[in-house]
Amino acid sequence: MTLWYEITMVNIDFDLLDKKLTSSVISDVLDGFGFRNQAMLDDIRPLDPGMKLVGHAATMLMMDQYEPSKNTFSLQMKTIDSLKKDEVLVVCSNESNRAALWGELLSTAARARGARGTIVDGPARDIKQIKEMEYPTFAKYIRPISSKGRIIAVDNGCPIVVGGITVNPGDIVFGDIDGIIIIPLEVAEKVISEALDVVERENKTREELRNGSSLVNVFKKYGTL
Amino acid sequence: MTLWYEITMVNIDFDLLDKKLTSSVISDVLDGFGFRNQAMLDDIRPLDPGMKLVGHAATMLMMDQYEPSKNTFSLQMKTIDSLKKDEVLVVCSNESNRAALWGELLSTAARARGARGTIVDGPARDIKQIKEMEYPTFAKYIRPISSKGRIIAVDNGCPIVVGGITVNPGDIVFGDIDGIIIIPLEVAEKVISEALDVVERENKTREELRNGSSLVNVFKKYGTL
Amino acid sequence: MTLWYEITMVNIDFDLLDKKLTSSVISDVLDGFGFRNQAMLDDIRPLDPGMKLVGHAATMLMMDQYEPSKNTFSLQMKTIDSLKKDEVLVVCSNESNRAALWGELLSTAARARGARGTIVDGPARDIKQIKEMEYPTFAKYIRPISSKGRIIAVDNGCPIVVGGITVNPGDIVFGDIDGIIIIPLEVAEKVISEALDVVERENKTREELRNGSSLVNVFKKYGTL
Amino acid sequence: MTLWYEITMVNIDFDLLDKKLTSSVISDVLDGFGFRNQAMLDDIRPLDPGMKLVGHAATMLMMDQYEPSKNTFSLQMKTIDSLKKDEVLVVCSNESNRAALWGELLSTAARARGARGTIVDGPARDIKQIKEMEYPTFAKYIRPISSKGRIIAVDNGCPIVVGGITVNPGDIVFGDIDGIIIIPLEVAEKVISEALDVVERENKTREELRNGSSLVNVFKKYGTL
Amino acid sequence: MTLWYEITMVNIDFDLLDKKLTSSVISDVLDGFGFRNQAMLDDIRPLDPGMKLVGHAATMLMMDQYEPSKNTFSLQMKTIDSLKKDEVLVVCSNESNRAALWGELLSTAARARGARGTIVDGPARDIKQIKEMEYPTFAKYIRPISSKGRIIAVDNGCPIVVGGITVNPGDIVFGDIDGIIIIPLEVAEKVISEALDVVERENKTREELRNGSSLVNVFKKYGTL
Amino acid sequence: MTLWYEITMVNIDFDLLDKKLTSSVISDVLDGFGFRNQAMLDDIRPLDPGMKLVGHAATMLMMDQYEPSKNTFSLQMKTIDSLKKDEVLVVCSNESNRAALWGELLSTAARARGARGTIVDGPARDIKQIKEMEYPTFAKYIRPISSKGRIIAVDNGCPIVVGGITVNPGDIVFGDIDGIIIIPLEVAEKVISEALDVVERENKTREELRNGSSLVNVFKKYGTL
Repeated sequence: MTLWYEITMVNIDFDLLDKKLTSSVISDVLDGFGFRNQAMLDDIRPLDPGMKLVGHAATMLMMDQYEPSKNTFSLQMKTIDSLKKDEVLVVCSNESNRAALWGELLSTAARARGARGTIVDGPARDIKQIKEMEYPTFAKYIRPISSKGRIIAVDNGCPIVVGGITVNPGDIVFGDIDGIIIIPLEVAEKVISEALDVVERENKTREELRNGSSLVNVFKKYGTL
Repeated sequence: MTLWYEITMVNIDFDLLDKKLTSSVISDVLDGFGFRNQAMLDDIRPLDPGMKLVGHAATMLMMDQYEPSKNTFSLQMKTIDSLKKDEVLVVCSNESNRAALWGELLSTAARARGARGTIVDGPARDIKQIKEMEYPTFAKYIRPISSKGRIIAVDNGCPIVVGGITVNPGDIVFGDIDGIIIIPLEVAEKVISEALDVVERENKTREELRNGSSLVNVFKKYGTL
Repeated sequence: MTLWYEITMVNIDFDLLDKKLTSSVISDVLDGFGFRNQAMLDDIRPLDPGMKLVGHAATMLMMDQYEPSKNTFSLQMKTIDSLKKDEVLVVCSNESNRAALWGELLSTAARARGARGTIVDGPARDIKQIKEMEYPTFAKYIRPISSKGRIIAVDNGCPIVVGGITVNPGDIVFGDIDGIIIIPLEVAEKVISEALDVVERENKTREELRNGSSLVNVFKKYGTL
Repeated sequence: MTLWYEITMVNIDFDLLDKKLTSSVISDVLDGFGFRNQAMLDDIRPLDPGMKLVGHAATMLMMDQYEPSKNTFSLQMKTIDSLKKDEVLVVCSNESNRAALWGELLSTAARARGARGTIVDGPARDIKQIKEMEYPTFAKYIRPISSKGRIIAVDNGCPIVVGGITVNPGDIVFGDIDGIIIIPLEVAEKVISEALDVVERENKTREELRNGSSLVNVFKKYGTL
Repeated sequence: MTLWYEITMVNIDFDLLDKKLTSSVISDVLDGFGFRNQAMLDDIRPLDPGMKLVGHAATMLMMDQYEPSKNTFSLQMKTIDSLKKDEVLVVCSNESNRAALWGELLSTAARARGARGTIVDGPARDIKQIKEMEYPTFAKYIRPISSKGRIIAVDNGCPIVVGGITVNPGDIVFGDIDGIIIIPLEVAEKVISEALDVVERENKTREELRNGSSLVNVFKKYGTL
Repeated sequence: MTLWYEITMVNIDFDLLDKKLTSSVISDVLDGFGFRNQAMLDDIRPLDPGMKLVGHAATMLMMDQYEPSKNTFSLQMKTIDSLKKDEVLVVCSNESNRAALWGELLSTAARARGARGTIVDGPARDIKQIKEMEYPTFAKYIRPISSKGRIIAVDNGCPIVVGGITVNPGDIVFGDIDGIIIIPLEVAEKVISEALDVVERENKTREELRNGSSLVNVFKKYGTL
């Protein structure tokens, strides 16, 4: 199946965005377009300060359950096996803190499919190994406990809410050490284009400030900070 | 005095466990034996991501008090002076956030006795120095304030609850970046033995996933993830 | 305008204090002088474990507001443009988590004025850049969102409460990985002098403990830990 | 000054709404019109279970400050003295828990102006007296401490966010034991009209359920619960 | 279908237990039998201080979801329509605070089936009406928002965890103003019998204390408090 | 033993204070004398809205412990048996939420000794019975679980911190629905005397406001609100 967003957005150069942009710049640009509530809450953090991710959101919805003997892996495995190139898996567990939703083996499988990273509003484990793999992973908690018999995938490809923000499949997700931003797909192109411009302009402001200009003067000159 | 657990468990090679195992693997093995609630809560963290500890638990119980002039060090010093080789000091302060229960000097004294690390459900200080010493320390908070006149040891060698988990003296404690696991002494040998096996098996699973096998197929083949 | 504390305290060698002291040692000395509540709460943290700051407090009071079109930068820019050599900007936002109160450009401007660092009880952004600049910044949260139209400076040079501690303009602020201490200006000289002494004495205690002395004996000998 | 909403909405019978409607029914009707996020968080509660309020929002923005000698009453008094008939005072303090924003004397003054109640996202005091007056007051906290020198009004008649919901001056506020709903002024008439209808219809559903009909059958018949 | 617990426990006189016992007495008796962790956390409260419930647990598992147009009522209605005489509906939503899981119409339907009350670890609404009905309802939150399109039942008749305690279908649930206790079915008969005895004995202790006996003497005489 | 505060303060008429004063008025008076931090945090609440207490503080310090078989009642009973007329028992458990520190039998014993009420920063139980006795009890939590083997008294007659405020034995404690105030013993007489005056003056202010005077005018006339 060809997804709608694969058709409309074929030419996003995610490696370029990863290199040039930051979540803070994107947030400012979204503000300018009137999208003032697109940053996830601050408690979903990269496992390593240098981790950065950008791609199309693939969504999964999970929940806690309480039957230890039940096989809880089925839909979760299927979802990960279906990930596509340039997707970022975004998992809503309604903020479960029971057991690790993500770990080294799932990271290995996701990377093999071409995924660019994973965001979970619950716990991850195998932190050392995931850092060594340099697979960009953002999680709310860290716990060593297996999800087996504790948390189960109940849906995928659906709208979810993670870190207080609605994520629709295909939306552009951008995460780095400053936070995680969701760019609604319908404004992605103009937001990305403007953000690349802003990055250039900020270099001048920074240079003048470094040379001793006051904030008031720089703001007068460029109309922004 | 020879402790019972010193007699029964003389031959645990803690250096080997420290090198080979992870808290996540041990947690999975404990799950398999029906011990599904042995991981401490996630807010007690290593001071440095690379810190890892394993050993027999030595326990201390502390509490907040409010008489600044009182000498609060007596039982605390005695407990640390009595630590033995291959022990891990586990301190229950009922989650006090008033003052540092642990610091550089206590770390120095504990290491000189042969202790393999310390876990406190309250604050530590002298973080820079403890990291430089590479003395494995896990704490819930970081605060610069001395415990003198603020928190006092009231018992040791007793059962305590730390991070939501009961710790009995002699239990095996294992901590790393994924979390902290308590292995009840009576199942320690079989848990450790099985965990060493699991580590080997996971290497195969990881290899196949890296080569592009789907999670569904790998799970079918090995019956586990 | 010459501030009173510039007159009375002209000869503090802040570089020396930065090199020799720690927040833990200063906290102990303040305890000894009866100032037992001078450490901020533990949730305002350095952006990088190695960051350390010491200087005179310059204060700013900010608040959340809800008119997106309003220019909220005016007093904030003026405050930062007025920072003086050896000052630390301390910002009270009453623990706002809405938007970043601090970022790379403000850090650049503050450093150009001679400021030694910034403490905010709200969010910072541009974390990667601030770390690269090595501008000591302590913050409670990290968020990518601009303060524009979200949070506004309403006063400066006033008493504020940050991390539970009152900060008056001119107070000595000391922050490192263990925490942040406020030294009231009137006792700054004797506290600093005593703290430099304590650091020397601790070297002996540490050495003896390292060589195997018990805590009980070391405490008997030196009367302190 | 005649406010715009006084012109457009002159004929709302607030006493009727107070008697007939509930926040739950209004919330359902707003859901139906696609306004799915109009209920404040659940921690702002009526001082007495029977308290109920409905009216046009008059807004005030307050903030914590730390100069005990400062007169902090000025704008606060002016705002309350300007309240009009059928207004509900809604106060945003950004969730201050320092001192009481509301008490018996302010309630007395507000009632004398014709206000129908007060909502504060901070503390109230004089609880016994306000209950005896039966002046509908909803607060997040209860504290006996005066706001004098602790919290100050900085604006009024502006948009604010209270309990997570934006409140614009003139919006219809409805509060009872189930919670507090903000009805945007532009949809107020159709929402109120529909809500009055729903109340009638629910009587039938309740009657059938009481007589033993299953939920499934009642839902089939009426298409709603 | 006849449930196992209906066969084994046919002769429990729930009206008697409701009249004579309290959750505190039952908790003490469970302690004596070694069941020391059977009380739910304290944040699930009766809607009215006088509400009390006792019966067999019927369980339902719910979860937040984010598709407004989806019909989320189906399994929830079926579960309530299937309630039996002397059952208490216990709902696990994994502590959702999004929308009301319970209200007047569901209470009406549950009572018509013979249910003795409802416990939810999420929000209830229609508080005034439920209190007037005197249908015993315990909830963690109060919110006016409909669950339609926000939270969905995904299972029933399964083990759940509510307020930190595992609840199996058929377990005896006892709730009053002091809290909520789960009595595992297998020890229900001896616990109930002992609890009825304890209530009688406490009358003597209370009488002696009222007449001025010291706690020490009363404890010596009766061996309990 | 005659306590110092019994000698110096023999003639306080606690019944009069109970009838005339409120915690809010006392807080204002303390503010005026420069004691601006004497109100406990707002989460210790009366079990019944009408409960009110005033008296000399008798203090007890308790802590969680984890040996179920241990007798934990000994010092607790002795402390309560030693309560004197016009004392209020104030218990610091460092905010334990494990088990009830207070209940009906202890209330009965305390009242028989002449105590005027109890404040605990942990849980109470037997809520219905304590309300029926009308024994003023303020607690932070409500739980049905016995303290036996869970929490133990370790000291009494010592300084403690409850609700964030230091309480010394003999201090005057005043609690009602607005909150709990600690009046340091050395200023008790002038605070009480001034508070009785303020109550009279407030009657005038209230009367004028009720008759329609503006807050601004009333404040101008009386210099206070």
